[in-house]
Amino acid sequence: MDFPSSLVQKAVDEIAQLPGIGRRSALRLVLHLLRQPKDFSERLSSAIATLRQQIRYCTTCHNISDAEECSICANPLRNQEVLCVVEDVRDVMAIEATGQFKGRYHVLGGKIAPMEGIGPQQLTIDALIERVEHEEIKEIIFALGSTMEGDTTNYYIFKKLNKFPLVFSAISRGIGVGDELEYADELTLGRSISQRIPFEVSMKN
Amino acid sequence: MDFPSSLVQKAVDEIAQLPGIGRRSALRLVLHLLRQPKDFSERLSSAIATLRQQIRYCTTCHNISDAEECSICANPLRNQEVLCVVEDVRDVMAIEATGQFKGRYHVLGGKIAPMEGIGPQQLTIDALIERVEHEEIKEIIFALGSTMEGDTTNYYIFKKLNKFPLVFSAISRGIGVGDELEYADELTLGRSISQRIPFEVSMKN
Repeated sequence: MDFPSSLVQKAVDEIAQLPGIGRRSALRLVLHLLRQPKDFSERLSSAIATLRQQIRYCTTCHNISDAEECSICANPLRNQEVLCVVEDVRDVMAIEATGQFKGRYHVLGGKIAPMEGIGPQQLTIDALIERVEHEEIKEIIFALGSTMEGDTTNYYIFKKLNKFPLVFSAISRGIGVGDELEYADELTLGRSISQRIPFEVSMKN
Repeated sequence: MDFPSSLVQKAVDEIAQLPGIGRRSALRLVLHLLRQPKDFSERLSSAIATLRQQIRYCTTCHNISDAEECSICANPLRNQEVLCVVEDVRDVMAIEATGQFKGRYHVLGGKIAPMEGIGPQQLTIDALIERVEHEEIKEIIFALGSTMEGDTTNYYIFKKLNKFPLVFSAISRGIGVGDELEYADELTLGRSISQRIPFEVSMKN
């Protein structure tokens, strides 16, 4: 694309580096910004700049946080003995929204993915081991996405923590609530059957 | 969505105001920014800020431009007698990419759309009339999108310019090059037939 302005060119170049936004969409966004009042762009620009400059992570669970310790870790009413291992803040938000989990989290910051150059050292696995050594943790719940990378990461952490007296569990996979069996994929339905649960348990909640 | 950080909240709020980006995608973009080196966010943020602060429009055709006059208007080799009326810079870029147009442009900045509060006064129609009065223009080509708003805008401009000794034309509508008839919608195919062109003309280029 040949741009009539180097400012437009530059903005499109930068915006198009974001995931899921091509050069055509980037140009559409640039034209939108130009049609809006000046302070719209200013607020957007400063939100992006301050986000990256001032962002903090909870020193305990590594979730994004406004303070040194996040509101979940700082809450004495949360169960200190159960730790839910998740990939990122989105998973924390999703699980918190269910209202079903009263323990605390450990945010890995990603999954082991050698193809993308992400090894165990890029994640907060060492910090997790340290927490297990120093805190009163009794159960680890693996709540990573059900992909090959997720399973690899789960297994790597399991091997590292196996020597500690811990109960390990993983979130259940299966047919979604309200879903019809005929539309489920075979793998999911297969897991739903092989990893079936006692009927009385299934009736709860 | 309950965010664990007010910085994330603010960035998501701002990004989600962009067209076609919901809160979920905005959060995905925010997490991406947090995973990238700091200067990635800085470059993005400053490109957006300087874009809006320093953007200039060609004083002749109102296209986005780096200088007071855009490179097309400033080019003495372009045909000064033919003016192509378009909606925005994307249309200029699209037509320039064809290499088929040697005249100059007039960029309206939008289409008349009363439902969205865009009347003739928000567009550069008065400037177009002034150009016709003071320049040596002989032909006006309407090249707006083929929508109700586009047709309304064409007609409004036509009525305003009708008193001048001008030739008016519009870009042709019809079956795309390489398209099969059976897949064309009825309106387009209908126009293709009713606005048919001499066979010798159709064989050119």
